[in-house]
Amino acid sequence: MRISFAERMKGMKGTSVRNKLFDDPMLISFAAGKPEGKLFPADELIPSVIEILQRDYQEALQYSDTEGIPDLRSLIAEQRMREAGVRTTADRITLTSGSQEGIEMSAKIFVNPGDVIICENPSYVGAYSAFEAYQPSYVGISLDEDGMKMDELEQALKAHPEAKMIYTIPDFQNPTGIVMSDERRRRLAQLAAEYEIPVIEDCPYGDLYYDGDRHPAVKSFDEEGWVIMLGSFSKIFCPGFRIGWVCAEPQILEKYILCKQSSNLQCSTLDEKIAAEYMRKFDLNTHIEEVRAVYRGRRDRMLECIEKYLPSGVRYTKPHGGFFVWLELKEEIDGGELLIEAAREAKVGFVQGGGFFTGPGHENYIRLSYSFVDEEQIEEGMRRLGLLLKKYY
Amino acid sequence: MRISFAERMKGMKGTSVRNKLFDDPMLISFAAGKPEGKLFPADELIPSVIEILQRDYQEALQYSDTEGIPDLRSLIAEQRMREAGVRTTADRITLTSGSQEGIEMSAKIFVNPGDVIICENPSYVGAYSAFEAYQPSYVGISLDEDGMKMDELEQALKAHPEAKMIYTIPDFQNPTGIVMSDERRRRLAQLAAEYEIPVIEDCPYGDLYYDGDRHPAVKSFDEEGWVIMLGSFSKIFCPGFRIGWVCAEPQILEKYILCKQSSNLQCSTLDEKIAAEYMRKFDLNTHIEEVRAVYRGRRDRMLECIEKYLPSGVRYTKPHGGFFVWLELKEEIDGGELLIEAAREAKVGFVQGGGFFTGPGHENYIRLSYSFVDEEQIEEGMRRLGLLLKKYY
Repeated sequence: MRISFAERMKGMKGTSVRNKLFDDPMLISFAAGKPEGKLFPADELIPSVIEILQRDYQEALQYSDTEGIPDLRSLIAEQRMREAGVRTTADRITLTSGSQEGIEMSAKIFVNPGDVIICENPSYVGAYSAFEAYQPSYVGISLDEDGMKMDELEQALKAHPEAKMIYTIPDFQNPTGIVMSDERRRRLAQLAAEYEIPVIEDCPYGDLYYDGDRHPAVKSFDEEGWVIMLGSFSKIFCPGFRIGWVCAEPQILEKYILCKQSSNLQCSTLDEKIAAEYMRKFDLNTHIEEVRAVYRGRRDRMLECIEKYLPSGVRYTKPHGGFFVWLELKEEIDGGELLIEAAREAKVGFVQGGGFFTGPGHENYIRLSYSFVDEEQIEEGMRRLGLLLKKYY
Repeated sequence: MRISFAERMKGMKGTSVRNKLFDDPMLISFAAGKPEGKLFPADELIPSVIEILQRDYQEALQYSDTEGIPDLRSLIAEQRMREAGVRTTADRITLTSGSQEGIEMSAKIFVNPGDVIICENPSYVGAYSAFEAYQPSYVGISLDEDGMKMDELEQALKAHPEAKMIYTIPDFQNPTGIVMSDERRRRLAQLAAEYEIPVIEDCPYGDLYYDGDRHPAVKSFDEEGWVIMLGSFSKIFCPGFRIGWVCAEPQILEKYILCKQSSNLQCSTLDEKIAAEYMRKFDLNTHIEEVRAVYRGRRDRMLECIEKYLPSGVRYTKPHGGFFVWLELKEEIDGGELLIEAAREAKVGFVQGGGFFTGPGHENYIRLSYSFVDEEQIEEGMRRLGLLLKKYY
């Protein structure tokens, strides 16, 4: 068979998180950005599901609105967006199949082939993979400990007036774990309005802060509506439901609704009802506090273990939230080759860093996730990684 | 705000099924292709959900494979595909958010801007809406009582060697309700291999046959792998779960998996588990038999009412399955204008037919769905529609 696929398929690649190396049951994996399953609130969900199906199974299992059931959209507008410092309404919320779908639709809505997307460098590999279908080019902006550098961003906006959107993960960025300062958030909203360019604010980790308070969303500084905020239940509730959302001004939001409708009509009605029932009956913020306490412990243990086991020449970020630590190794170490050795010999896994960058090179980085491994596993896994790395230092 | 959207957004339109006219609670609506909610197997689903969550909530609410959970893929390969006459295996199945997502991804995978899609004329409006994002042109093939005309298709294949795919709904087609004969199915599979062009066989209604037996899928005649079959639980089980599937050869299927992963990672894990648990414990075919009996009664009543109430000049299809009857009205009647009058004055709804065609014109068609209205409502609704139409005949 000589099959002729569309041009856009050429750039699409699978995620390295699904590497077959990770199938080894003896492996301690710091690869996937998965939440801890023990934290899912099953005891509260079981009676909720029974009640929903007994009360009105005909509606719970039927088609429903593309935007999502009105209850859940209101609850998101009132609760989740308020937590992020954004005062909004249900008619500015549409549901998506996780934050991932919001990312994909953003490129679909704004990007013609060849158009520039501005993003942090490095940034989320799953975003590149979604963007690639729309054949963009990238301009990457460096990060320091306060997040995306605003002077570099402004230079890029001047140099690329044709850029179509800015993609950012301001909270505990993937892969670096870095948080953007409030001052830069304000500046980013200003620059978007000044240069008339949409900002896609991807915010799956915003509620998972372990030191100090939650940062107000970039969207909370947005006066003209150029910021499009993507939220998700995946990291704070249950990822299996595939429920995320977009918050944007109506004239932009209608394009997301149109895309969602033509792509897959809607999210799961039952899962939307379960999420709404849970949020009405229980306090999601109390649940998130419990979740934070567990991840804070793991983050602390991970940082201790880096100090304890890794060669002192390894540079690393110290995240104040989220799931990730980002390691810069000696320049001559290739993260991909190291991964093969680590998985096969040391039985420890992570994600190689090269794919997170807008361009080639940077192979001497790796990402470690501490969200899905308990503290004992962190200790043992980091001990193994340390032993392996010491061969190179 | 002067927002610059991508070129591809220009052709995308919302579906007419979501017309605000249908919000009137007094309206009897033959518009939506919705299944009957009373038929959803809630009594079997409630214990299934409880068991799944009690047995392993950590897995049921967690991320899972993009392809879908292995259990459900095996069950689909063994049961649903076998019913359609296709012998296949789980590694040739990937889950999608309903058949709609399979349609959208097909265009994403095969169609460059300007490429020709060959389809029945008329065809499903939701498919055009999904395709539009990839900026195709269309070549429409006429239908007769045996489905898509194969001689006309072959002419089109000769005239358009650059065509990238054939989209067809062989079973109880949307909007016409027409079924493709077995002979033409075989011929379609042959032509696909001969002209080396993928056939997207969209099959949400294949199990819903009311006279005689199920037709073997076009895919059952496919020897070289050019047929890509889309299936769905939406019409035979519960649409709210958003579970459909693609069955294709591995080298094609991997592109669908890549698209699904970058678009939204996966379907709902919980909903996949519920569907698998139901299929293991209960006989889905027994359920489908019950569903068929109800729809068969509604189809019969609808056809009786057309004879009884509608002017004799109205031409209509006599479906042997599925959800739809397709009406050709006098040429001077505009389906869109008639709909406004029908909804406001006669309190009856349907879908105007113009949008189902690949080109302009054809406004004198309407689609009636009998799936979501009981027999008494069908009687009353058709009486009202008949009264209205008699003004024009």
